[in-house]
Amino acid sequence: MTRRRKLTRNLKVILCYDGTDFCGWQIQRQERTVQGVVEEALFRLHEHPVRVKAAGRTDSGVHARGQVISFESDSTVPDERFARALNSRLPRDVRAVAVHPVDDEFHARYTARRRIYKYYLLPAAYSDPFARRYCLTVKRDLDMQRLNGYAGRILGVHDFTTFAAASDDSGSMMRQIFSSAFCLEGRFIVYRIEGNSFLWKMVRSLVGTMLAADSQGLSPLQFGELLDRRDRTLAGDTAPAKGLFLTRVIYDE
Amino acid sequence: MTRRRKLTRNLKVILCYDGTDFCGWQIQRQERTVQGVVEEALFRLHEHPVRVKAAGRTDSGVHARGQVISFESDSTVPDERFARALNSRLPRDVRAVAVHPVDDEFHARYTARRRIYKYYLLPAAYSDPFARRYCLTVKRDLDMQRLNGYAGRILGVHDFTTFAAASDDSGSMMRQIFSSAFCLEGRFIVYRIEGNSFLWKMVRSLVGTMLAADSQGLSPLQFGELLDRRDRTLAGDTAPAKGLFLTRVIYDE
Repeated sequence: MTRRRKLTRNLKVILCYDGTDFCGWQIQRQERTVQGVVEEALFRLHEHPVRVKAAGRTDSGVHARGQVISFESDSTVPDERFARALNSRLPRDVRAVAVHPVDDEFHARYTARRRIYKYYLLPAAYSDPFARRYCLTVKRDLDMQRLNGYAGRILGVHDFTTFAAASDDSGSMMRQIFSSAFCLEGRFIVYRIEGNSFLWKMVRSLVGTMLAADSQGLSPLQFGELLDRRDRTLAGDTAPAKGLFLTRVIYDE
Repeated sequence: MTRRRKLTRNLKVILCYDGTDFCGWQIQRQERTVQGVVEEALFRLHEHPVRVKAAGRTDSGVHARGQVISFESDSTVPDERFARALNSRLPRDVRAVAVHPVDDEFHARYTARRRIYKYYLLPAAYSDPFARRYCLTVKRDLDMQRLNGYAGRILGVHDFTTFAAASDDSGSMMRQIFSSAFCLEGRFIVYRIEGNSFLWKMVRSLVGTMLAADSQGLSPLQFGELLDRRDRTLAGDTAPAKGLFLTRVIYDE
């Protein structure tokens, strides 16, 4: 009996992209999307269509430093040269930063255990021409201690209906948050959140609501009540997409 | 005898701009220039034309963190509110970061004593989607010690003909360099140069030539000979505009 050698391999690729000029991740007719340009590049590399799975379907204007995609590849390009081959076919606002062969069971979305997002705030009198695409400028003082009081309230397993988009009907609103805190990165105040997964627009709704709560001087207890009441009309404005980065996706080893 | 109160004041404004989407500083018909949008904003603020002087006429694609302009203003907007009033009339890729009333003798260009430019290099296998507009990606190893050997060679007063643009016929090619060195800023290798003034495209020509010299393994002595021979055909390629920033302009107190 001869054994047939498997001709395809499952690849995991880590992507970095500037979301400014994209209508989000998910492929759409007529619109420039990250999935669209990535699948176009893979098509040119494979000479046949390749459909990819992504860990996070980022919205229009949201950036990624560590988006993860996976797909079956029959390309003869070796793993160690795959990133370069793919990058030469991608526009300059998207880059493959790492390529790894993975088990057949690996699925960028379904086997992801945790996702980490960061939201960048720039406390300044004027927006910065160089950072304007990548952060929200906040022209008033922020109370880091109070913001961290709010951030701590959402740790653990909760029903996040309050922070769901109005049109989200994707089933369970329960999510587990492992880490949620504001910290300093240079001139920026960064909100970092790590969870098993997130509802549509949940991180931006959390940031917008925490900023509103801070300007209103709410206590962490009062902020916690917004979560407990599971009423999306209680949330503040959704923070703009440009400050949000999908930073990292964690899988089992 | 009554004294007539002077109705105008001389203002010094520090500007920050992302040069990517501008055809340089200097006003041109049909083209979007920084001077054009700034004079347009000042026109709307003053309700009559205002002509500005700038410390450095940055080229197409060159950025500024500390461009200095000066102009006579008869606006009734107080100094402390002038930046906000101007910014509200400027596009988002230009910002006034400071406004100071100055002596009538102050002229942004003619009274400037020193100008500081920085050139950003990113040593990396792939360009970074977020930094791609603001640095040159260098895909090979750079020898910092050797580069600093070259940088040190241009200190003092020299004829910089070798590093002048071919079409530069602006008179004397003598310039004084007070400081010239490569240093690290996070992931970036930054070339910082401080001089009394610079020839057209001189900094980019210096950077391009030092990078070429490094890849050819020239000694600092050999690099120094390029300068001494005052022959512009000896210079390497002019480094791209996107890595260059006008960082600061220094005046007498």
